Amino acid sequence: MNTQAVLSYLQNLQAKIVEAIELVDGKNFLQDSWQRPEGGGGTSCLLEEGNVFERAGVGFSHVLGNRLPPSASAAHPEAAGRPWEAMGVSLVFHPRNPYIPTVHMNVRFFVAKAQNSTDSDIWWFGGGMDLTPYYGFEDDAVHFHRTNKTALDAFDAAYYPKFKKECDEYFYLKHRKEPRGIGGIFFDDFNELGFERSFELQRAVGDSFLQAYLPIVQRRKDMAYGERERDFQAYRRGRYVEFNLIYDRGTIFGLQSNGRTESILLSMPPIVKWRYDWKPESGSPESKLYTDFLIEKDWLS
Amino acid sequence: MNTQAVLSYLQNLQAKIVEAIELVDGKNFLQDSWQRPEGGGGTSCLLEEGNVFERAGVGFSHVLGNRLPPSASAAHPEAAGRPWEAMGVSLVFHPRNPYIPTVHMNVRFFVAKAQNSTDSDIWWFGGGMDLTPYYGFEDDAVHFHRTNKTALDAFDAAYYPKFKKECDEYFYLKHRKEPRGIGGIFFDDFNELGFERSFELQRAVGDSFLQAYLPIVQRRKDMAYGERERDFQAYRRGRYVEFNLIYDRGTIFGLQSNGRTESILLSMPPIVKWRYDWKPESGSPESKLYTDFLIEKDWLS
Repeated sequence: MNTQAVLSYLQNLQAKIVEAIELVDGKNFLQDSWQRPEGGGGTSCLLEEGNVFERAGVGFSHVLGNRLPPSASAAHPEAAGRPWEAMGVSLVFHPRNPYIPTVHMNVRFFVAKAQNSTDSDIWWFGGGMDLTPYYGFEDDAVHFHRTNKTALDAFDAAYYPKFKKECDEYFYLKHRKEPRGIGGIFFDDFNELGFERSFELQRAVGDSFLQAYLPIVQRRKDMAYGERERDFQAYRRGRYVEFNLIYDRGTIFGLQSNGRTESILLSMPPIVKWRYDWKPESGSPESKLYTDFLIEKDWLS
Repeated sequence: MNTQAVLSYLQNLQAKIVEAIELVDGKNFLQDSWQRPEGGGGTSCLLEEGNVFERAGVGFSHVLGNRLPPSASAAHPEAAGRPWEAMGVSLVFHPRNPYIPTVHMNVRFFVAKAQNSTDSDIWWFGGGMDLTPYYGFEDDAVHFHRTNKTALDAFDAAYYPKFKKECDEYFYLKHRKEPRGIGGIFFDDFNELGFERSFELQRAVGDSFLQAYLPIVQRRKDMAYGERERDFQAYRRGRYVEFNLIYDRGTIFGLQSNGRTESILLSMPPIVKWRYDWKPESGSPESKLYTDFLIEKDWLS
């Protein structure tokens, strides 16, 4: 296991993504480094009121603690309470144009340290990415999923369907009986290939992010929209808020472990609206999101 | 114990509050009755895009279940898992004018039923109200607290300070190290006066709500405001969302017990903004909220 190599990879990944997004947007990110009193720190990169992105955050963090909170790992209950170290890159981009989907990507590495000489360190990778359209396009969904599949097929053809399913299960709003978006991939507690090859898989996922998302941004960013589309986008962003504050393990872990609130809540959209029991008119472009995209579907069949 | 009497009181309270708010606003509430597949139902009264209120919801619900979720009662762990019945009126008003504070009020009654002949029913009342200003006014805070104190002093002079403290503790955003507003009163698991007198106390709280809030609305509703004040209001409303989705027991209980999502989320503000690590300029009217109102304070001393 080589924690330092993971750390370097993650820091470079953040820099690479920030640079690419700055080129697309034309506005630069603010970089804000912070330290955590209990140990560790991070760098939050943030773009607000950009040309393409209304709010975009790419966070790197490396945090340490004395007792791992139970929310950190469902699959490793024996790790709870141990000294721990976690590092990751997490991003959420909220574009201004409602035809560009919101995207989320995260890659992370956890170590729950041995507490005595008969123990050994427990470590695992996690990560994934998922796409949340306001107005869906089949081409975009297929491209996103195909890029995910290609990245994973180099390791095992079983991974894409498995991680796609885990993504569908994870990014699901039970209280709405609604998926968050068109999915993508999600994996957690991953160490089955041994450290070197598991780390390679994580890099394959992280490295494919720009390729999965940027072509979609390019295709949609000059499409004309008006108040109607902005209004629907603001309404749908409410679901994003609900998911992140009610269900998201990363958010809950961050808040439980006394993380840096402003960095954790970089995922919040810039402007959000709620209204009572709203439903799109049948046959409208807005209704297509519900009927054709927020459904269980194999996008590559 | 007289469940039917509580039920009638709560339904009348909802009607009375709706009527009073309609008079102030000039726009009528929509009334939406619903049934819950697992048992019970409710009526959600809702005003959106009113003249004074941008979003106002008053919900009555009466729900039944077979197994009480643990989140329902911190003080009665023995009630978890029992058949239960809960009824309440819950309201949140989000005014348009940023000089009018947002208000929340709730009165509720829980019964966890005896499971065999050696058991007895466990019942308790809960409730309270709290005020969340955007631009604070000492007069408003004092009036709100004084009305709360007067309602409770008829029962025991110890209740107001006790329930005020419970309110401060409950409506606190740990991840922000910030109170939600200027507080008010909060009580739960209340049965110490026996049924009749405990029910009287709940009625005293419910009946004092309009008196606690409406004079503040009248004082502030014609104050001129602009984009700056609306923007700060939208930003601060983000805290309301964070509290309700992360901490609020009523919200979490509702979502866990497969409640009616649109009725539970009536508390969400109509338009909300998030931005990164924003702080008001020192000495500005916005900074006064933090320095003079979002603090631990005895408003009646």
